[in-house]
Amino acid sequence: MSDRIAVVGGGAWGTALANAAAATGRPVTLWLRDGEAAARLQASRENARYLPGVTLHDGIRATGEARDLAGAGIVLLVTPAQTLRGVLENLRSSIDPQAAIVLCAKGIERGSDAFMSAVAAEAMPGASVAVLSGPSFAADVARNLPTAVTLAAGDGDLAGRLAAALSGPALRVYHTDDVRGVEIGGAGKNVLAIASGIVAGRGLGESARAALIARAFAELMRFARAYGGRPETLMGLSGLGDLVLTASSPQSRNFAFGQRLGAGATPEEASGGKLAEGAFTAAALIALARRNAVEMPVAEAVAAIVSGEASVDAVVAGLLARPLKREAE
Amino acid sequence: MSDRIAVVGGGAWGTALANAAAATGRPVTLWLRDGEAAARLQASRENARYLPGVTLHDGIRATGEARDLAGAGIVLLVTPAQTLRGVLENLRSSIDPQAAIVLCAKGIERGSDAFMSAVAAEAMPGASVAVLSGPSFAADVARNLPTAVTLAAGDGDLAGRLAAALSGPALRVYHTDDVRGVEIGGAGKNVLAIASGIVAGRGLGESARAALIARAFAELMRFARAYGGRPETLMGLSGLGDLVLTASSPQSRNFAFGQRLGAGATPEEASGGKLAEGAFTAAALIALARRNAVEMPVAEAVAAIVSGEASVDAVVAGLLARPLKREAE
Repeated sequence: MSDRIAVVGGGAWGTALANAAAATGRPVTLWLRDGEAAARLQASRENARYLPGVTLHDGIRATGEARDLAGAGIVLLVTPAQTLRGVLENLRSSIDPQAAIVLCAKGIERGSDAFMSAVAAEAMPGASVAVLSGPSFAADVARNLPTAVTLAAGDGDLAGRLAAALSGPALRVYHTDDVRGVEIGGAGKNVLAIASGIVAGRGLGESARAALIARAFAELMRFARAYGGRPETLMGLSGLGDLVLTASSPQSRNFAFGQRLGAGATPEEASGGKLAEGAFTAAALIALARRNAVEMPVAEAVAAIVSGEASVDAVVAGLLARPLKREAE
Repeated sequence: MSDRIAVVGGGAWGTALANAAAATGRPVTLWLRDGEAAARLQASRENARYLPGVTLHDGIRATGEARDLAGAGIVLLVTPAQTLRGVLENLRSSIDPQAAIVLCAKGIERGSDAFMSAVAAEAMPGASVAVLSGPSFAADVARNLPTAVTLAAGDGDLAGRLAAALSGPALRVYHTDDVRGVEIGGAGKNVLAIASGIVAGRGLGESARAALIARAFAELMRFARAYGGRPETLMGLSGLGDLVLTASSPQSRNFAFGQRLGAGATPEEASGGKLAEGAFTAAALIALARRNAVEMPVAEAVAAIVSGEASVDAVVAGLLARPLKREAE
């Protein structure tokens, strides 16, 4: 595996991951689609738009040229979930065939209802694919605060090698071979965080929000059972850990989107022109859930609100007025 | 079962539960140890010390007389965990033998390392005992915000009847026969919330705190497996739900205590004269864990800090520097 690490995507998370990768001592190429933005970043050493106040590590070279991806042994894909297929199709001829592809977007592709690893397998047949996920705000990683995430690859040895390569003084990378379990946690939590935001924005209190998170986690466990994710993965960093983080902080775009919905904004107003990832994944998640008869009332509620089929009030009342019964039913 | 409900303990949670019980339409007796405080509460209709700004429901009679407990079909015990045995021994002759005792304190008794239901079985032999637990700030319940909790009794039918009797328009009570599972969640989360507070007080960021909560939950699951609590109970309201709430909000006394420790206070300074429940339970929890070889590094860290055996810095560094490995190990 070549020492060099490439990062595709110059948002907050891509920039923070590039800094963390460079902190391991490896040379890092940070690729941005926008060549002018790449040149500015390379010169100013600051991503003023997405991660202001953080100095780019000396070991990073920012570029807008796809050919600069050649020679990297590890390529981190850090673009939005719904753009992954297009980005991979555009860049695959520039990426070394033996490079390991690490998918850092969390979501399910609309239309195909495909998880990110399935998208990558189709867009780059034969590539070694891994998934990186876990509770990690870009701002925390950028400030070198301790962060722990999970890296999954079907080949457990590859997962171990990638985790060791990407772990640095602040970012700790644990590994597993349960790719599907990690993907389900990452995609699902974005949807469920919107519900948590709605409860917060509606002013229903912390107790109600905690109850909702417990129910949301139960949904995610049911979904994982139906789709081959392991329970212990869902209970780990990339499942429970990331759900707790995303569903509790306005720093999360999905939670903040839900908060605005809860406060009375329409989905269009709440999005501020850019829909949160969970809003895209909601429809795909419930389509998959229905296909296997997995009950996901919280995700259904989010999908109905986001699509404009139901009002926040109608859905919240429905969620809270469920009949009293034994808890595990 | 007589219609009347008695609540023993006039703290914030006892007062809020009395209001919620009265909202079901049943007559409620609220017993306080301090007769003068009871008389003031009965006259002023406000618990100015513990729950200011909340009007006592008309259906509540506050009293300091133990004999007023007679005739209640349900008695909620809402005094601190470490006082439960003494309170029950003092009051048992005043409580109807056929009354159902609902334990609302969360913790493990120091010295005996006994769960609350075991304490009650010893202090009131032959009584029907249930446990009420779940994510519920007194302030939320008092404001009639939607709240969902779990009631457990070994006799599942009794659990169902009690849950139905206590459920009102805002407080929803689910039921289970897994007493031990509910007790483990309630006792454990207080200890683990201290750890979460320490990470917050130390300024380590939300990502680190979310990772810690995921690890803390894994500890609690291991402990429950060893002590006969069911996994689905731990994943529910009284386990995960309450852990998320308690470990995330300065409204929780245990979290706030941890925050002060993390910011540099000694355990004595941080306690402000009144130790948080988790500080008592920590030693009992790890004693039980060691007895069955359950690994609980987060709880061990809390116990070491609270007892003054280790500094926050030493323990936090140790927790975050664990060797990289497969996640589920």
